[in-house]
Order: sequence, then structure tokens, then C-alpha cells
Amino acid sequence: MLTATGILTQADGEAIQAGLDAIETEIEAGTFPFSVELEDIHLNIEARLTERIGDAGMRLHTGRSRNDQVATDFRLWVRGALSQAHEALSGLMRVLVVQANCHGDAIMPGFTHLQTAQPITLGHHLLAYVEMFERDRIRLVAASSHLNESPLGSAALAGTPFPIDREKTAQSLGFDRPMANSIDGVASRDFAMEALNCLAISGVHLSRLAEEVVLWTSPQFGFAQLSDAWSTGSSIMPQKRNPDAAELIRAKVARIASNAHCLMMIVKALPLAYAKDLQEDKALTFEAFEAYLLCVGAMAGMMGTIVFNRPAMRKAATFGYSTATDLADWLVQNLNMPFREAHHVTGAVVKAAEAAGIGELREVPLTTFQAIEPRITMEAIALLSVEASVASRTSYGGTAPVRVKEQVARWCQSLTMNTK
Amino acid sequence: MLTATGILTQADGEAIQAGLDAIETEIEAGTFPFSVELEDIHLNIEARLTERIGDAGMRLHTGRSRNDQVATDFRLWVRGALSQAHEALSGLMRVLVVQANCHGDAIMPGFTHLQTAQPITLGHHLLAYVEMFERDRIRLVAASSHLNESPLGSAALAGTPFPIDREKTAQSLGFDRPMANSIDGVASRDFAMEALNCLAISGVHLSRLAEEVVLWTSPQFGFAQLSDAWSTGSSIMPQKRNPDAAELIRAKVARIASNAHCLMMIVKALPLAYAKDLQEDKALTFEAFEAYLLCVGAMAGMMGTIVFNRPAMRKAATFGYSTATDLADWLVQNLNMPFREAHHVTGAVVKAAEAAGIGELREVPLTTFQAIEPRITMEAIALLSVEASVASRTSYGGTAPVRVKEQVARWCQSLTMNTK
Amino acid sequence: MLTATGILTQADGEAIQAGLDAIETEIEAGTFPFSVELEDIHLNIEARLTERIGDAGMRLHTGRSRNDQVATDFRLWVRGALSQAHEALSGLMRVLVVQANCHGDAIMPGFTHLQTAQPITLGHHLLAYVEMFERDRIRLVAASSHLNESPLGSAALAGTPFPIDREKTAQSLGFDRPMANSIDGVASRDFAMEALNCLAISGVHLSRLAEEVVLWTSPQFGFAQLSDAWSTGSSIMPQKRNPDAAELIRAKVARIASNAHCLMMIVKALPLAYAKDLQEDKALTFEAFEAYLLCVGAMAGMMGTIVFNRPAMRKAATFGYSTATDLADWLVQNLNMPFREAHHVTGAVVKAAEAAGIGELREVPLTTFQAIEPRITMEAIALLSVEASVASRTSYGGTAPVRVKEQVARWCQSLTMNTK
Amino acid sequence: MLTATGILTQADGEAIQAGLDAIETEIEAGTFPFSVELEDIHLNIEARLTERIGDAGMRLHTGRSRNDQVATDFRLWVRGALSQAHEALSGLMRVLVVQANCHGDAIMPGFTHLQTAQPITLGHHLLAYVEMFERDRIRLVAASSHLNESPLGSAALAGTPFPIDREKTAQSLGFDRPMANSIDGVASRDFAMEALNCLAISGVHLSRLAEEVVLWTSPQFGFAQLSDAWSTGSSIMPQKRNPDAAELIRAKVARIASNAHCLMMIVKALPLAYAKDLQEDKALTFEAFEAYLLCVGAMAGMMGTIVFNRPAMRKAATFGYSTATDLADWLVQNLNMPFREAHHVTGAVVKAAEAAGIGELREVPLTTFQAIEPRITMEAIALLSVEASVASRTSYGGTAPVRVKEQVARWCQSLTMNTK
Repeated sequence: MLTATGILTQADGEAIQAGLDAIETEIEAGTFPFSVELEDIHLNIEARLTERIGDAGMRLHTGRSRNDQVATDFRLWVRGALSQAHEALSGLMRVLVVQANCHGDAIMPGFTHLQTAQPITLGHHLLAYVEMFERDRIRLVAASSHLNESPLGSAALAGTPFPIDREKTAQSLGFDRPMANSIDGVASRDFAMEALNCLAISGVHLSRLAEEVVLWTSPQFGFAQLSDAWSTGSSIMPQKRNPDAAELIRAKVARIASNAHCLMMIVKALPLAYAKDLQEDKALTFEAFEAYLLCVGAMAGMMGTIVFNRPAMRKAATFGYSTATDLADWLVQNLNMPFREAHHVTGAVVKAAEAAGIGELREVPLTTFQAIEPRITMEAIALLSVEASVASRTSYGGTAPVRVKEQVARWCQSLTMNTK
Repeated sequence: MLTATGILTQADGEAIQAGLDAIETEIEAGTFPFSVELEDIHLNIEARLTERIGDAGMRLHTGRSRNDQVATDFRLWVRGALSQAHEALSGLMRVLVVQANCHGDAIMPGFTHLQTAQPITLGHHLLAYVEMFERDRIRLVAASSHLNESPLGSAALAGTPFPIDREKTAQSLGFDRPMANSIDGVASRDFAMEALNCLAISGVHLSRLAEEVVLWTSPQFGFAQLSDAWSTGSSIMPQKRNPDAAELIRAKVARIASNAHCLMMIVKALPLAYAKDLQEDKALTFEAFEAYLLCVGAMAGMMGTIVFNRPAMRKAATFGYSTATDLADWLVQNLNMPFREAHHVTGAVVKAAEAAGIGELREVPLTTFQAIEPRITMEAIALLSVEASVASRTSYGGTAPVRVKEQVARWCQSLTMNTK
Repeated sequence: MLTATGILTQADGEAIQAGLDAIETEIEAGTFPFSVELEDIHLNIEARLTERIGDAGMRLHTGRSRNDQVATDFRLWVRGALSQAHEALSGLMRVLVVQANCHGDAIMPGFTHLQTAQPITLGHHLLAYVEMFERDRIRLVAASSHLNESPLGSAALAGTPFPIDREKTAQSLGFDRPMANSIDGVASRDFAMEALNCLAISGVHLSRLAEEVVLWTSPQFGFAQLSDAWSTGSSIMPQKRNPDAAELIRAKVARIASNAHCLMMIVKALPLAYAKDLQEDKALTFEAFEAYLLCVGAMAGMMGTIVFNRPAMRKAATFGYSTATDLADWLVQNLNMPFREAHHVTGAVVKAAEAAGIGELREVPLTTFQAIEPRITMEAIALLSVEASVASRTSYGGTAPVRVKEQVARWCQSLTMNTK
Repeated sequence: MLTATGILTQADGEAIQAGLDAIETEIEAGTFPFSVELEDIHLNIEARLTERIGDAGMRLHTGRSRNDQVATDFRLWVRGALSQAHEALSGLMRVLVVQANCHGDAIMPGFTHLQTAQPITLGHHLLAYVEMFERDRIRLVAASSHLNESPLGSAALAGTPFPIDREKTAQSLGFDRPMANSIDGVASRDFAMEALNCLAISGVHLSRLAEEVVLWTSPQFGFAQLSDAWSTGSSIMPQKRNPDAAELIRAKVARIASNAHCLMMIVKALPLAYAKDLQEDKALTFEAFEAYLLCVGAMAGMMGTIVFNRPAMRKAATFGYSTATDLADWLVQNLNMPFREAHHVTGAVVKAAEAAGIGELREVPLTTFQAIEPRITMEAIALLSVEASVASRTSYGGTAPVRVKEQVARWCQSLTMNTK
């Protein structure tokens, strides 16, 4: 750009280009002589360039400033990291869809308050996370799009008298456009805050799944077993499979969210345009992305190799009169009973079952049902199995295996997967 | 929808509709008999409805659950609040554009590290905030779009066997589509987190401007004076104008960011689908939006009535050899001196000026300049006034009054304003 | 004090005292005419006083300022609230000690990574929380002691020329001494930060116990059942006992910690002496204490009425070869085997048990043991019951019932309880 | 201890001791062969020990577990770090006392809302920070005392059947006593939270002073100049002194507070006894202490070499009718005017001065004073200089030079300093 606009001569431009290429080779080869006294990467490169090509090297910095360079570099870095995060998350989603496909009809308890509420299918449960991660991906894309403006050319903070071509440099670096205000260009860090907030929200989703892995693999639940690769044993209890990775995800997510918050705490009440406080932004951001990618990778590894114990899950789904709503729904649909009344009748049946020490509604004798509501039939009782319950929830987005299958198909297409 | 699908009879549907209309009138009239025992608004309305229309009232809740209702209500609330926030922010942006228009050529110091760096124009400085708030608006719109899916029909968590029409209810409530997974529908709160994070980032921007107001109105700066309406005096110092509103904005912004973080802390590691912890989401969200709207309104009030002291600002802009870069740029552009060398020459001039006790570069005698670099001319020195400095920064996004004017015009159009 | 030092006449002093007494009566009777225009409580009282007693009322404020008054009032409030928190926590500790006394020999699984590690006693587990709460109490007392200095007499920020007696006012208000620097007196809020941090740490402890209550009362664990008063059911599942209170504690604790952090975010980088930002301190503090007292009260209610299912806990304690370490310890103590080797031998036994599908070590046939280590005896195997395991852990602070009993006795004394 | 109790033979004990001594030498010499496969430092040392001394090495771990070892190590580390923090802070306090001693009578504006409120002395202002840091020190000591209990002997979580002597190991490691509950011993991290919270509060104090340094050294204030060593210039503006260190302190303090909060977020709702989440505690803690020590050191460096511009400060103190309260106090003390009335009279004088364009009260003509209150005398006006104002504030803790001198003397003694 500097030569195209005539700010530098063609000859200087070519010398600089050649010099920078040579320096790139040096850096890649590990032979570049970094000096701490030269403060940062920009000044190191310029000094080396001048050493190699003479005066032209001292023209490298024309029309710019470290302030806009740092802002530009940082945006490029975050853009790349967001793209990496997106790809990693897509990988995790594929893993979950594969599992959902295998377990679209596996019955497990749906919990509220960690109490059994209704039977659901494992595939449905796993796809709930795919939905969350899809929204996380949408937010990552949005963050990437919001940041994609070039601060280059803002110079120190006020712009420059050189006839630079900011459109051109913006395009060369893949930005959508140059930023329209030079002070904003060097002073703003909302793009980093937005990126970290996206990671934090997605991290919260990861932490919920991690928590469930810890619960599912505990002996009390026994819903699943981690692979050796994604669990830790001990010499004395070789059978033990500690869900260390899941626990570390929970902890790292706290770190990500705290870093996001910390950046806001740092920038809060900072007058324009630039203050050294902003230097801390990079460590916070690098650390958060590193932790996030670690978490997503570990989750994909864990969820790809976890083995579910379908009988244990199914059995747990029968606890707690989990099909009570099904009875209520039957009363409404077949006896035209008002919803609220159907609820009360069902409550009475549950109480009777509990008093009789019967653990599942479909094992309650017909006479007990009819003592409470004479119109209840054997056909109704047959619907109170956990299989019938999940099969009946066919409303859009419902847990019925047939619905889960449709959703799996939709995800396979959207994630360009082949699950035959 | 319940009648259209045949789940309820036409007669029941009409009775319910009429009953709800009557109840709405009661609520608006303040005559509705709320009962704390009935737990929440949904059960209160149902009970009252049954009182008024009998059995049909008990059918109101058919095919739904409080879980999906609450999730739906909360999304509707947040969507509305985001829209309010957007509107309020637009108002503030207009206020700033008006001020930028008045002060497009007013010179002030551009600071880095709160040290004078280069002269800039006040209009340019204010438009930097307009850019930030524009990105905040974009984020608010994105958050609104991301949340605009309907959880209604998720029922308790598993969907329902009733043949409900989720497309229809989604459309009626202005949602883009029904959510595709019922568990996700009742369990997720990322929409609230995203909304609060948007407020928090925007709050950080507000806090930076608030900080500047505090500085500008301090006697040491003396750049501006708050109106009586937006400052607080004391009986003993009636001339004092404490920037209480600006200070409260700073504090409230901490609150908003903390609430955003708190919601993530609450949801972290919560297993699906629903836990009572989530109940705290509403207080945090309501409080954050209330604080945000207060801050934006106060900022608009303050900035609309603040009076800038242009001579004081201009004078401050001349401190600290603020036009040193202009000399360096002249050396590069007119003597074809390499940038780095030009910097060193300028540094030597500044040192000489400081040693001679001369506060502004353009007051340094030509002989002093020429002792360091003989080719410096009177014409070069003439360019070292703060006016010439800002006028020269004409690169796109630069601080030159001519550029500010263009940006003001662009904002007037995009914010549909009439200025002049 | 103002009369004792001669700043006010005896007559004025008496008039003021009588006037204030009368106003107190008015406030208590609800007849005091508050006016928002008079800004705050101090000015309201002064105005009313002047109305009642004339000129002397206008002397009330002599030698002080709202700045030091607010700082003093706030310290008094926090001191009182800390004392309330201490008392509430003591109540909760007593509840836990009572349960620990009942269940000093009840066996449950001790978890690491939510995997069964070793058998422990429930009493021991509950006393772990008593230890935590004891440290919380110590911190509350420390916070109270650290704040107990009087800012009164700092006046606006610089002190006053009136010959006030700060020792006397400090003593009258129960402070240990007057603060030694008037600017510090009006500017500092570390006392509030420290108090909130104490609540936050104690809240973290509460949240851990709350989490355990949620787990223990889930059907998968089945370790305990909440009382009706401290759980929530539903009309359709009357047997359900949702641990709403435990879940709300978890959420409120996030609020308390966020408020503590928020106060630091507000005060960060505030120049001395006073800024309006500080006004937000009170809402944050009141809210945090209110939430804390709610949590402690709810926890005491829940834990006082929770019913433990000892057989279920005991059974769970036998899972996962939980007595493996006992075998290793026996090998070390009886065969003089080096610790590390004993670990490896035990690991081999566990592997063999798992391969043979035997769930408990003490059910493994002697021959299997001896195939691995011939010197293992029946006597050793007898020590592998969960009862023998806990009974053996008699080191100070260990889980053996005999140790728990001693600790219960110690706590009864220190908490002045009678548990016969 | 293991030999004293007979758990190990004397011979094994001596072999282990000798082996560990040799290993210490290896580690110090950098020749110790660390292996990542051996997971952690404990297992590395044990393996090497066994290599060197045979079987006895495998007895090293008798009666303990990595859980209690890690908890013990971490407490020892935090105790040492707290002590380092205390020492560093004492150093900073001494620096401030030296400056306060030099500037006990230097007049500067006391600000509220960053508006001039009353004249104060710089020494008084600096001692306000000494008071804050003194409370920080008290909190550090308290935290150190609260953590000083030994978890060693808790073993994995339940204690151990070996007849270990926990009193003895506690004493050897400088702990006050063994912890009374083994589960608490391995599960609790409140000691780290408390330590980080102490750093965070102290960090807030540092950030306030850092903010003031940024303000004071800005050209608009011009109250002080940083030394070259503690500021950053630029090649083009060699005279510039950017307060980078002060800005980094502000940013690092956000990091410290965020780490403190993050640890609470991690431990929140973790069931006992141990989960891998806790592993993150160390990185957070090490990072926070490192940042804190950096901040305290930088602040001491900056404040030890900062040069105050007393004339500029004094001049600023005369702005804004800063001695208005002195007039009011004179009216009360000499005319027996009620305080509130004196305030109103003073307000009228200020208004008149402002209307007449007179910047300082003591320059207002007597006639103007007397037009408002005829009893005002020349003697009263003489008291309205900033010198007279600060000299008059002799109440305990007041800003009068005589009071500052006393406080400096008190601090010299308590910090064992020799000034003069």
C-alpha cells in the first residue's frame, strides 16, 4: 500500500518486502536475534530490517504507530481464535449427534431439581446440548463478524497526514472495512470482551454437560462409564474411573468466565484513548481461548468414548411415578376431564400407590385406579410404561424417538455428517 | 391454538378468551384478587378464571407447563427490554452527534496514559463513543435475534402428547420459530446471559465516557461544565457542580457486569433440565436492565446539556509538545527522511525546547531547529500549531474537521436526524 | 460530647436531646413526616428538630459532616449485621452437631471425584462442615474487630477546628478507638469488602452442603429425605420432594459472592476522598447480608428436619471396593510390607475381584487373596467390612465413631449445647 | 515421626532421611531426573528414593496420602507468601511515611467527586493510604493465623489406622495444631480464598493510589513528576513520562480480584471431599501473589522517587472557594451562629464572590462580606487562606501539620524507622 500510494518508492518497497521475507525465514528457523531492549516484536523486526537493508528499513513504520498495529494484530488473532473455537465446537457437536443417533430410543429419567420428573430419551437429552452449542456457534460467528473492521491507519490515535489507503490494507488483511474513527480504533476492546463472553456462555454449557458426566458416572447413578483414556484410576483401585477431565472442564469454565469479567473490570472507567491497562487484555484472552479449546477437545474425547448403561438408565426412569403426567393426559384426552381436575385425580392415584408401596404406576391394580376414577381402563394403564410415555411425546421438539430421529437427520445434514 | 387443533372445544375456547379478557381488565383496574398461596401469576389467573367461567377454566393449562410458560414469558420480557435499550441508546447517540456537530473543529488534547499525545477535535472524540454505541446496538439486535425462538410447547421438559401447533403459537408471539428441543427450551438461559453481557459491554463504554465527564469537569481540567440539572451542589458551595450522575453510572455499570457474571456463576454446572437456582435469573436481569436504562438516560441528559470550554481545551492541547509527530511527518514527507530518523530528529528538537523552557514547538526559534536539522524551514514551523496539526490528519477516520463533518453527516442519516 | 467540650451550651444540648427523643418516638410511631426533598435521613431529622426546638436544631450538625456520619452509620450497621450472621451460623452449627451426634456411627461412602473412595461416618462428614463454619465465625469476628474504629469526627474529609472529643464519641458508640486519619475515615470501604468476603466464603461452604443435600435426596442416591416443610411437591406428584431451598441457597451464594466482587470493582481506582460511586455500597451490602441470613436460616431448617436413610448410605459405602486401603494398611502393619508394594498387591486383589464379578472385597474367597499374596489370612479379610474400616481410622481427626464422639463432645461444650 | 511412633524402624527412618537429603542436593544441583509419567513431585521423589535406598523408599508414603500432602504443601506455600506480602507492604508503608514526613505541611486540594472540597496536607493524604495498608497487613496476619492448622494425617480423607502423631508433624511444620477433621483437611480451600480476598482488598487500595498517581502526573494536574526509572518515554517525546507502572497496577489488581472470585466460583457447590476442580486453586493463587508482589514493589518504587510540585498543589488548593467551611466554622465559633445558618451565610458569600469573578474567598472585600453578615471581621478573612485552613483542623486525625507530624512519629515507631 505504501508504494501504491507513492508514500514509499518502489525500490524501498521492494527492499522492505525482500527484507521481511528473509526475516520471516529467520524467525521460522529460530535464528532471529530477539532483543528484550527493543521492547516488542515490531521494534525488533524494524531494527533487524534496517540492519539488513539499510535506510529503507527505517521507513517501514511510515504512516502507522504501534497503537494501531497492536490493535490490528490483536483483532486478527481473535478472529483466528474464534474460527478455531467454531471448528472445535462443530467437532463436539458431531460427536454428540453420533451418540444421539445411537441412543435415540434409550430411555432415561428427565430430571427437574435432580428429582425424576418424566422419562425422556438419551438422544433427546444429548441433542439439547447440540442446540446450545449451535447457538454458541452462532454467537462466535456474530462476534467474528462484529470485530471484522480494520483499525490499521488509526496511527497513534488521530489518523495521519500521509495519503494512506485504508481500504486497501483492510482488504488485504481480510477485514470488511476500515474503522471509521481512529480514536475508537486504538481505544476499544469490546471485540475481545464479546469474544470472551461468547466463550464464557459456551463454557457454561460445557460445564452443565461436565456436571452430568460426573453424576452419570458416579456409582449412585451408574448411567455411564468413561473410557480409560478419559478417566484416571489409582494403583490401589484400578477399577476406579475418576472423571478428572469433566471436573477440570468445570474449573476451567470458571476461569474463562472470570477472565471475561476481568477484562470488563479493567476497561471500566478508562478514559480514551490508550492506557497501559489494556496490555493485560492479551494474556486474559489467550488464556481463555486456550482453556476453551482444551475443554471442548476434552469433552469431545470423553463423549465420543463414553459407554452408556441403557438398562440402568431405563430402570432409573421408572422411579418416582415418572409417568404420572401420562395418566393425567389420558384423563384429559379420553375422558374429557379438565386438565386441573385430571391433575388432582392423578395425584390421588400416586398417593395410593405410595401408600401401597408400589413403585411404578403401571403396577397399581386396576381396582385402585377405579376406586379413584371408575372410568380408568386397562388400556390407560398400559400407557403408563416408560416406553409408552416417551413414544407419546410427539409434539415438535418432543422426546419421542421418532422426533429425535428427525432431529438427528437435520443435524447430520447441517453438520455435513454421514451417519448411515 | 388449542381450539384450532381441536384440543379444546370452540365453546371452551371462547369462554376462556372472554374470561381472560375480563381478568385483564381486572388487573389493569387493580381489582384482581392476588393470592400468595397460589404461588405465581399463572395459578392465580387460572383460579380466578375457574371462579368466573367454571370447568373451562380448569382446561386453560392443557398441553403446557409452568416450566415452558416461564421460559416463554422471560424471553418475551428480555426481547422487549432489549428493544427499549436499543431505543434509549439511539437517543444517546443522537445527543452525542449533535455535540460532535457543534464541536467538529474544537481542539482538545488527545490523551494516551492521560498524558497529552496529539491534538484532536472534540467532535472526533465524541464520535468515537458513537462508534462504540453503534456496535453495542448491533449486539443488542443480535441478542434479540438469537433469543427469538419459542419454548412454548416444551411442556415440563419432554414435550406433550397433545397435538399442539407450536408454529402457530410461536408466530402469534412474534417468535421466528419454535425451539427444536423441549429440554433445551426449559433449561437454557444463554439468551439472558447474552443480553446481560451486551448490557455489560455497553456499560463499560458508558463508564469510560462517565470517567471523562468527571475528569473534564474537575477544576484541574476545566474542559466542561455540567448543567445544574445534571450535577449536585451544596448549601455551602453553591458554585460546586458535583458530577454525581457520572459517578453513579460508573458504579451501576459494575453492578450490571456483576449481574451478568453472577448469572453465569449460577448456571455453571447445573444439570438439566430445571433447577430452582434458575429462579434468580429474573431479579438479576430486571435489575440490570433497569440500571442500564437509568445510565443511558442519565448520560443523554448530561451530555445534552454539558457546556464545553473550548479555549481551555485548546490551551491544554498545546501542552507537552503535542505536535511533535507533525514535525516528524514533515521531515519524512518533505525531506524524504526515513521515518525512524525523523523521529530521532524530532526528539532532539523537543529536548532542546524543554531545555530552553519553551512550551510549544512552534515557538522554538528557527535557529534551534536548524542547529539540529538545517533543512527545517519556517513553513515547517508554521505547521506545528494545533490547528494545522488536526487539519492535516485527513486519512479516513482521522481527526481533521473535514473528516468529522463527513462522519457527522453519515450519522445524521443513519440515525435519521436533522442537524442544522 | 458537644456540650461536654463546651461546643454547645448545656441548654442547647438538652433541647436537642429532648427533641431527638421526641423524634425517635415519632419515627417509631410512624408519624414522622419524611420528605424526599430533604435528601436523606440526616437532613430530615435536622429539619424536624429545628421545627420542634428552634435555633438549637440548627446547631445539631456542628463539627460534623454527612460524610463522616454516613461512614459511621454504615460501620455500625455492618457491625450489627456481622453479629447477627455470627449468631445465625452458631444456630446452624448446633443443628449439625445434633445430627452428627445421632449419626456418629452411621456409615456412608466418602467420595472423591463423586466416586466412592472410603467408608466414612455421617457424623464425621457433618462435622467437617461444623469446622468450616467455625472458621467462618472466626472470620466474622475478625471482620467485626477490624472495622471497629470510629470515623466520626473526620468531618467532610479534613477534620474540624472544633475541639471535639473523638475518644468520647467512639466509646459511646462502642468503637475501640477513633480512626487516626480523617481522609481514610470517609474514603475507605475495606470494612464492607471484608465483611462481604467473609459472607462469600461462608456462602461457598453453604453451597457445598446444599449441593450434597440435592444429591443425597435425589432418587439415585436416596441417602436422605427432606421434610415437607423444607421441600416442595406438585399437585400431580404429591410424593415428590424438590429441594428448592437447597437450590436457592446455591443461587443466592452466587449473588453474595458477586456483590462482594462488585464492591471491589466499584472502589477500584477511585481517587480519594469521596465519590458518589460509594453510595452503591449500601445496597450491595444490605442485599448480601439479607441473602446470607436467609441461606443460613434455610440450611438450619433443612438440616434440622432432614431424615437420613442409614441402610441406603451403608449399602452405598460398600460399592467400589471402598475398603481396599484397609487391606493395604493390613499388609503394611502385619506383613511389614512396604507401603508401595502393599498398594500394588491390593490393586491386584481388586482386579481379581472385579474379574470375578464380586462387588465387595470381604466376599472374595481366601484362595483368591492367597493366590496373590499367600500370607493374607481370614482375620485380614474380616477387617474389610465397612464397619471395621471406619472403626480403624482412629488417628486424631479420623472418621472412627470414637473420634466423632469426642469431637461432638468438644463442640457441645464450645457451642454451649446440651446433647445428653 | 514415623520412627518415633514405631511405624517405621529406626534403620528405615535413617535410610529415608539420608536418601531425602541426597535428593534435595540433586534437586538444588539441577541433576534430579524428573519424569512426567510419575505425575507429580511426590511420586518422583519416592521413585528416586527407592532407586537409591531400596525397599525403605517404598515405605515413605506410609500413613499418608497425596490428598493430605497437597493440602499441607499448599498451606505452607500460602503461609510463606502471606509473610512475603506483609513484608513487601511494610516496605511500601515506610516509603509513604518518608514522603509524608517531607510533605507534612505541603498543601493540596482535598477532593470529593474530584472537585475541590477543602485544603489538606499532602502528608495527611499519604498517611490515609498508610492506614489502609496497615489494615491490609492486619488482615494478612489474620489470614495467616486462620490457616495455620495442619491437614497432615488426614490421609485420603478418613484418617488412618496407623498410630501417627499429628501433633508432632504439625509442630515440626510450624502449625499451631492439627486440623480436627480429616475430611475438612483435604476438602477445604477457604484459607486460599481468604488469602486472595486479602490481596484483592489491598489491591483495591493500591489501585486508588495508582489512579491518583496517573491524575497527579497528568499535565492538567501537574502535581507530581515520576522519575525516569518509573515511567516510560518515547523516542519522539523524550520529555513524556507515561505512568505505565501505575496503569499496570490498576490492571493487575483487577486480575487479583478476579482470581479471588474465580476460586469461589470453582469451589461453589462442590460436594466433599475432593474433586479435580480444586487443582486450579494453585495457578490462581500463585498468579495472584505474583501480581500482588509486583504491584507493591512497583508502587514502592514509584512513590519513593516521585517528585511533588508543591506550588502547583498549593495553587490548586485555592480553587473553588475551598475555605468556605472555614468561614462557616468561624461564624459558629465567634458569632455563636447556629451551624446551619452559618452554612447559608457562607453560601451567600461564595455566590457573591463568584458573581464578582473573585476566585479566592480571602480576596473578597470586607464590604462584600459585611453586606451579607455585618459582624464578619478582617481577622475572619485572614483565616481563609489555605495555610490557616489546614492549620486549624487540629481535631484528632485532622489534616493540620501538627497532627500529621504526630502521626508520622507514631508510624516511624511502629514501622521501626529512623526518619530525619
